Amino acid sequence: MHVSALYTDLYELTMMQGYLATNHNPQVVFDMFYRNNPFDGGYAVFAGVNDLIDKLEHFSFDKEDIDYLASLGTFKKPFLEYLATYRFHANVYAFREGSIVFPGEPLVRIHTDLVEAQLIEGIVLNTINFQTLIATKAARMCRAAKDSAIMEFGLRRAQGDGAMAASRAAYIGGCAITSNTLAGKVYGIPVGGTMAHSWVMSFSSELEAFRKFAELYPDNAVLLIDTYDVLRSGIENAITVGLEQKKKGKKIGVRIDSGDLSYLPKEVRKKLDAAGLADATITVSNDLTEDIVQQLVESGTPINSWGIGTHLVTGGFQSSLNGVYKLAAKAGEDGKMIPTMKISNTTAKTTNPGIKQVYRFSDADGQALADLVALQSEEIVAGQKYTFYHPFSEADFFQMKPGAYAKAEPMLVKQMEDGKRLLPEPKLKDLQQEVKENLKAFHPTYLRLINPHIYKVSLSQQLKNLKFGLIVQERERQFQEN
Amino acid sequence: MHVSALYTDLYELTMMQGYLATNHNPQVVFDMFYRNNPFDGGYAVFAGVNDLIDKLEHFSFDKEDIDYLASLGTFKKPFLEYLATYRFHANVYAFREGSIVFPGEPLVRIHTDLVEAQLIEGIVLNTINFQTLIATKAARMCRAAKDSAIMEFGLRRAQGDGAMAASRAAYIGGCAITSNTLAGKVYGIPVGGTMAHSWVMSFSSELEAFRKFAELYPDNAVLLIDTYDVLRSGIENAITVGLEQKKKGKKIGVRIDSGDLSYLPKEVRKKLDAAGLADATITVSNDLTEDIVQQLVESGTPINSWGIGTHLVTGGFQSSLNGVYKLAAKAGEDGKMIPTMKISNTTAKTTNPGIKQVYRFSDADGQALADLVALQSEEIVAGQKYTFYHPFSEADFFQMKPGAYAKAEPMLVKQMEDGKRLLPEPKLKDLQQEVKENLKAFHPTYLRLINPHIYKVSLSQQLKNLKFGLIVQERERQFQEN
Repeated sequence: MHVSALYTDLYELTMMQGYLATNHNPQVVFDMFYRNNPFDGGYAVFAGVNDLIDKLEHFSFDKEDIDYLASLGTFKKPFLEYLATYRFHANVYAFREGSIVFPGEPLVRIHTDLVEAQLIEGIVLNTINFQTLIATKAARMCRAAKDSAIMEFGLRRAQGDGAMAASRAAYIGGCAITSNTLAGKVYGIPVGGTMAHSWVMSFSSELEAFRKFAELYPDNAVLLIDTYDVLRSGIENAITVGLEQKKKGKKIGVRIDSGDLSYLPKEVRKKLDAAGLADATITVSNDLTEDIVQQLVESGTPINSWGIGTHLVTGGFQSSLNGVYKLAAKAGEDGKMIPTMKISNTTAKTTNPGIKQVYRFSDADGQALADLVALQSEEIVAGQKYTFYHPFSEADFFQMKPGAYAKAEPMLVKQMEDGKRLLPEPKLKDLQQEVKENLKAFHPTYLRLINPHIYKVSLSQQLKNLKFGLIVQERERQFQEN
Repeated sequence: MHVSALYTDLYELTMMQGYLATNHNPQVVFDMFYRNNPFDGGYAVFAGVNDLIDKLEHFSFDKEDIDYLASLGTFKKPFLEYLATYRFHANVYAFREGSIVFPGEPLVRIHTDLVEAQLIEGIVLNTINFQTLIATKAARMCRAAKDSAIMEFGLRRAQGDGAMAASRAAYIGGCAITSNTLAGKVYGIPVGGTMAHSWVMSFSSELEAFRKFAELYPDNAVLLIDTYDVLRSGIENAITVGLEQKKKGKKIGVRIDSGDLSYLPKEVRKKLDAAGLADATITVSNDLTEDIVQQLVESGTPINSWGIGTHLVTGGFQSSLNGVYKLAAKAGEDGKMIPTMKISNTTAKTTNPGIKQVYRFSDADGQALADLVALQSEEIVAGQKYTFYHPFSEADFFQMKPGAYAKAEPMLVKQMEDGKRLLPEPKLKDLQQEVKENLKAFHPTYLRLINPHIYKVSLSQQLKNLKFGLIVQERERQFQEN
C-alpha cells in the first residue's frame, strides 16, 4: 500500500524545503483541535484516527510523485532526494477513536521534526475533520431515533470519494448499516437496502413486483409502498404479500419514501396490525434530518427504521468541522521543548501553549463532570483538589474537591511510536459500541440536539499561568517595540 | 486500472439478481437530471462527466469483490458468475463537460439493459452531483471576483477523499490553482500556495522569515503579513523585503488571513504604493464565500487574489446537488422503446417521459434565449416556428418564430458507445476556458448570485402531449380501479 504524500498543500513542501535549506528543523509538538461544536450541538464524536494511522504508516513519495515534483521547477535535487527516502516517523498521541470530545481539547498531538509536522497537516485535518463531523451527525441522528435504527443510504449524494469515509464514520457514530457495498467490503460495515421505485415500475403490477421480491428475498422483503399510492395501493398489496409470507413463517417490512411521514406510518401501522402483521416493520426515508427524526419519534410515530442520505453523509447545512493544527512547543537550541502559542487579537483564536494532556473528571457512577487541560508534566491524580480555569478568562474558575469526583482519566493515549501503530486496530463494530457507552457518561442535557448545556473544558492552574504569562510577555514586547 | 463496481448501493445488486432471475432485463433509457439550481442561483456548471467516463470504462468486479459478495450469502452462483465477467457496455449521451445547464434537463442519458442501468446509478449520481455542485460554486466565486483570481485552498476542510474531485471541479469552474499537490499531479491542475503562520513563527523575527523566503523563492514570494500585526509589523517588514527584491528585479506579494478584509487591504495598498511597490499583489483568505468576495470587489477593495477553502470545496451551506436518475423509456415485448415516467402527487417530481434531446436556442450574437426539451425523434431545426411549453403547466407557453432566433443546437452528445469513450478526453484547462465562453452566452441577469432571472427550459409540443397524455391515462386508470 502506497498513500501518496503529495496529498498535502503545496506550501507545506515549499516551507519544508526552506526549513531544510536554512538548517531549521527543530523537534516540535503540534496539536489538532477544533473551536466550535458542529451542528450547534454540545459535543463531537472523535473519528478517523485509526484510518489516519493506516494512511500515515504508508505515507510516502514514489518515483512518479518525485518526478511530478521535479517537473514543477520549484524543488531542488537535495530536497527531492530527501523526499524519496521519507517515511513517517512521528510519535502520535490521540484520544481513542469514538471518544466524546469538546472544543479546545487537543485531540491529536504530534511529536516530530518541523519538516514532517508540516507535511502531514493536510492529511491529519482532512481525515479527522470530516470523519468527526459525520460520526457526530450520525450520533445525533441515532440519539434522536432512540430505539429505532438509522440506515446510511448516502452514496449518491456524498461528496465524491468522500462517500467511503462518510460510511465509515456514520457507522462508528451509530448507524446500523450502509448501502455502500464497497464501504462494506473495505471497512467490514454491515450492508443493506430495500428496493427502488424502478423495481416496482418494471413489473406489470405492484403486487407482482412485491411478490417476486419476497420470493427471491424471503428474509429481507422490505417493500417500497409509495410508487403509486401508499394507502390506496401500496399497503394493500404489501399486506397481501405479507400474509402469503406469514404462512411460510416469514416477516415483511414496508418503506415509505415520500408524502407525510407523520400521517402515513400511523395509517400503515393500523392496517398492518389489523391484518395480523404486527411484526411487519416500517421504514421511512426522504431528505431526513435529526430534527425531523426527533419530532417524529417524540410524537410517537410508529417507525422502526430510517434511511438517511444527504444530511448524514455531508453534514447538510454544516459541511465541515473547523479543526485546526497549531504549533504547541518547539525545541530550543539546547533541545528542551519551549511552549509556543499563537496570540490573536481574537481571544477565542489564541491557542494553548505547551505539551498538554486532557483529564476527564468523573464521579463514582462514571458520569463525566468536566475536562481539565493540563501540562503533560503535571501530575493530575484523583484525590487532590484542582482549580479549573476558563480558557479565555483568568478570573473565571471553579474548584473540584477530592470528594466531588472519583476519577481523573488521561484521555490522550500514545497511538504511534516512531511512525508505527502501537495499539491493535479496533473493529468498527467495537468502536460503535464504545461510542454508545461513552455517550452514557454524559448527562442528557449535554446531548440535547438544540441549545445543549455546555460541558466545561478548563485549564489547570499551571497551564493557565503559562498561557496568560506568555500573553502578557508578548503584549509587553509589542508595546516596547512601538 | 480497476474501479470496483462495488461502488454501488447494495439494493441495486439485489434488484439486478432479481431481474436476471425473473428474466426481466429489457433495454432501457435512464436520465440523470436535477430539480433545483444550487445556491439559489440561476444555473449550474455541468462537471464530472469525463471523470465518470474514465471510471465506467474500468468499472468491474475483481476476484476479491466477488468473494466479498459471496460472503454476504444473498447472491447465488449464476449471478456472481455474471458479475465476474461484467464489463460496462452502455451508450452514454451527455452535455459536454463545462456546459451551462438548468433544472429538468437530462444531463446524462444512458441506453443499456435494466440490470446495468441499476448498477451504475450510484457512481453516476455520486460523480455528477458533487462535481457539478463544486464547479458551479467555483464559477459563482470567480464571477464575483471579476478580474482577480480565486485560488482553491480546500484540502484540509474537504470531505475526505472528496478533496480530489473538489479540486478538479473547482478548477473547471474557474479557479486559478489548487493547493492540493496530488490533484495537481493526477489532473494536471496548476498548483500553488504562499506560506503559513508557522513559517513566520519559526524564525526569530518576522523580517528574517520574510527575507529567507524571498531568497529561496524569489519568483513567488507571497508574504503572510498577519501573524503579529498587519499594519504595525507585517506590512512594514514586507516592504523592507519588497524593496530588497525590487533591486534584484523581483516582485513580492502579501497575504492577509485575518482581520477586517475591507479596511486592511486598502491600508496595505496605500503603504505598498507609497513605498514604490505598486506591482506588489494583495491576496486575502479566511472563510470566504462568494457573497463576501462580491461585496469586497464591488466596493473597490484592492485585492488581486483570494485563497478559498471550506465553502469552495464542500459547497458550504449547500453540501449536495439533488440530482436524480430516472427511467425514461423501456423496451416493450416487440423491442420498441416505450416512454415511461414517474407520476408523483408532487407535480414538480413528475418526470418527463421518452428519449429526449435538449436544444439551446440562441440569437445571431450567440446569446442563449431558451432551452427546448424535445423527443429525440423530433426534428428540431432552425428556421421553424416552435412552441415552448411550461414543464408543469400545459396552459403556459410561448412561441419562438423563425426571425426570433438564429440557432437551435442539440446539447446532448454521444460520449460513449458500447462502453467505450467516443470523444478525446479534454484537458481541464480547456474545459475551464469553455466554461468562461459558455457563460458569456447568458445575459448577466441569469448569472446574478442572488435572485437571478430564471432561464426558461420548456417542453416541445410533442413531449408536452406525450407527458400530459400519460398523466391523464394514469389518473383514469387509478380512477377506474378505485
